[in-house]
Amino acid sequence: MTQAPLYDVCAVGNAIVDVLAPCEPAFLEAQGLTAGSMQLVDAARSAALYAAMAPGVEASGGSAGNTVAGVGSFGGRAAYIGKVADDQLGGVFSHDIRAAGVAFDTPPLSDAATGVCMINVTPDGQRTMCTFLGAANQLRVEDIDLALIGASAIVYLEGYLFDPAPARAAFEAAAVAAHAAGRKVAITLSDSFVVHRWRSELLAFIEASADIVLANEAELAALFETEDFDHAAAHLGRIVDIAAVTRGAAGSVVFGQGGAERAEIAAASVDKVVDTTGAGDQYAAGFLLGLARGLTLEDAGKLGSLAAAEVIAHWGPRPMVPLEQLARQAGLTLGA
Amino acid sequence: MTQAPLYDVCAVGNAIVDVLAPCEPAFLEAQGLTAGSMQLVDAARSAALYAAMAPGVEASGGSAGNTVAGVGSFGGRAAYIGKVADDQLGGVFSHDIRAAGVAFDTPPLSDAATGVCMINVTPDGQRTMCTFLGAANQLRVEDIDLALIGASAIVYLEGYLFDPAPARAAFEAAAVAAHAAGRKVAITLSDSFVVHRWRSELLAFIEASADIVLANEAELAALFETEDFDHAAAHLGRIVDIAAVTRGAAGSVVFGQGGAERAEIAAASVDKVVDTTGAGDQYAAGFLLGLARGLTLEDAGKLGSLAAAEVIAHWGPRPMVPLEQLARQAGLTLGA
Repeated sequence: MTQAPLYDVCAVGNAIVDVLAPCEPAFLEAQGLTAGSMQLVDAARSAALYAAMAPGVEASGGSAGNTVAGVGSFGGRAAYIGKVADDQLGGVFSHDIRAAGVAFDTPPLSDAATGVCMINVTPDGQRTMCTFLGAANQLRVEDIDLALIGASAIVYLEGYLFDPAPARAAFEAAAVAAHAAGRKVAITLSDSFVVHRWRSELLAFIEASADIVLANEAELAALFETEDFDHAAAHLGRIVDIAAVTRGAAGSVVFGQGGAERAEIAAASVDKVVDTTGAGDQYAAGFLLGLARGLTLEDAGKLGSLAAAEVIAHWGPRPMVPLEQLARQAGLTLGA
Repeated sequence: MTQAPLYDVCAVGNAIVDVLAPCEPAFLEAQGLTAGSMQLVDAARSAALYAAMAPGVEASGGSAGNTVAGVGSFGGRAAYIGKVADDQLGGVFSHDIRAAGVAFDTPPLSDAATGVCMINVTPDGQRTMCTFLGAANQLRVEDIDLALIGASAIVYLEGYLFDPAPARAAFEAAAVAAHAAGRKVAITLSDSFVVHRWRSELLAFIEASADIVLANEAELAALFETEDFDHAAAHLGRIVDIAAVTRGAAGSVVFGQGGAERAEIAAASVDKVVDTTGAGDQYAAGFLLGLARGLTLEDAGKLGSLAAAEVIAHWGPRPMVPLEQLARQAGLTLGA
């Protein structure tokens, strides 16, 4: 029999600080960037792009880091594994995730720079990302704290980690450790370009090791190579126990029991979409915490929508008001 | 005869990166902080306060730096003199001010850390600031580029520079150089506590050297040791050529011709005040650029109100949309 988990969610991801700046669509074109995408860049391209960007703001980011910060903001118990350097931005990342109530003890690297994600945001709120991984690229199997994984109801893995081979090995070790301890493994597909790059590997991982999958429409389409949403969603429902697919302003669809259960969740209302960075990450925060606390799929999805709505109404990928408060106002109870 | 100025405004100030985080009023009390104030802190206190703060966002700040970034956002020609270190935050500061179109060439320091201002923002949007000056504290007379000062219609000086003695000497050298070149000297009182600390020195500086003074109500009251606004404002009007006093939601009052001219400017409307950081700085941006371009005092004040309204509607002390666009929409023409 497994012990009650100490943590609701432990995430493994690329530890990144975001640099967010407004831009016009013409800037993306001039820089050869595909709107809404994430691409990896090297140090030289990173410096050139930064020099061309508008004045911005910095905020701790990293997809899975954003998610556990959201779990903490809901009052959930969360932990994080990811690699920063012992520089100023590493200090910012470490402060912010710990201040969100998240346990974070991966040792920082010397002689490296903390990873940054340059995010250009068009007036419609859409974000286009270029990531210089820096220290995050150095995440290794030995960084995976197996006791921590075993003590967490859900281990949450970032699809982005499929890019660097050593990180992927760490990712797989985390999944094995979670199942060995009787815990659940959740994965986000992260980005449609990641899915294009690693489609068969991701599918194999999901079928063999994932209990819960989070994706958006574009990622789902890339995974099953079809634009037919219902067909792709049903396929996903059959190969994992639980799935949630986000559809932007159209809300989300959640699936359970291998697709036998299905619910549509409306998006929570937002006065003005400022910056969509972190929308999917915060949806994951609400959804995963809801699952960890035994809520219905529908209520877990509602928690996700609530968190996503908070984060797209301001600059930056993490909540600026306590999500716990918003959940209470919406009448959603988290349980123990 | 003086040459036409290359720059509208050249500012001298503490080059600082802000760390902004939400807090409850009880946090200020527990930390022994006076709501709405700015205080200087040493490295140890800075680290302890940061550890206690909520997750935040980082943004280039520094009062006069915010102002010239605002001037740049209006499409004005601006320059800046201030000291950062050659570290990551110094890189962020340098990028942001240059990306705002501001000339910035003060050499960065090695073996120092870029100054930071920890800003705790209560739910009503009020900000309480603790500043660790770091490299900013090392601004010296030799950092003042006299040619740059002479080429600027207005040199704008931060009252905060009265705190470090070497910076104050730099400040005074800048004023002398501006007048020698036939330019105008503007000063902001910065903070009521600065005024309390340096009241007689500030008064002497204003009477001897300032052409334009910017202040808020609390600073004005501290300068003349009276709560009688009209009395204090009239006094200020008599000792300088031009003055603007901001009153938060109540708008501002501008004075010209030694107090003979007076106009009240309404605050521009804001849906929700998120973070008042930078409100006075952005008001100064509009007001000073308006003066540099020969607008009426009233139109200069309106530009100020417009910029202040933009910045208090989001996190961070600098505009996130081009102020030039807002000025055009409001029918305010900047001239050449």
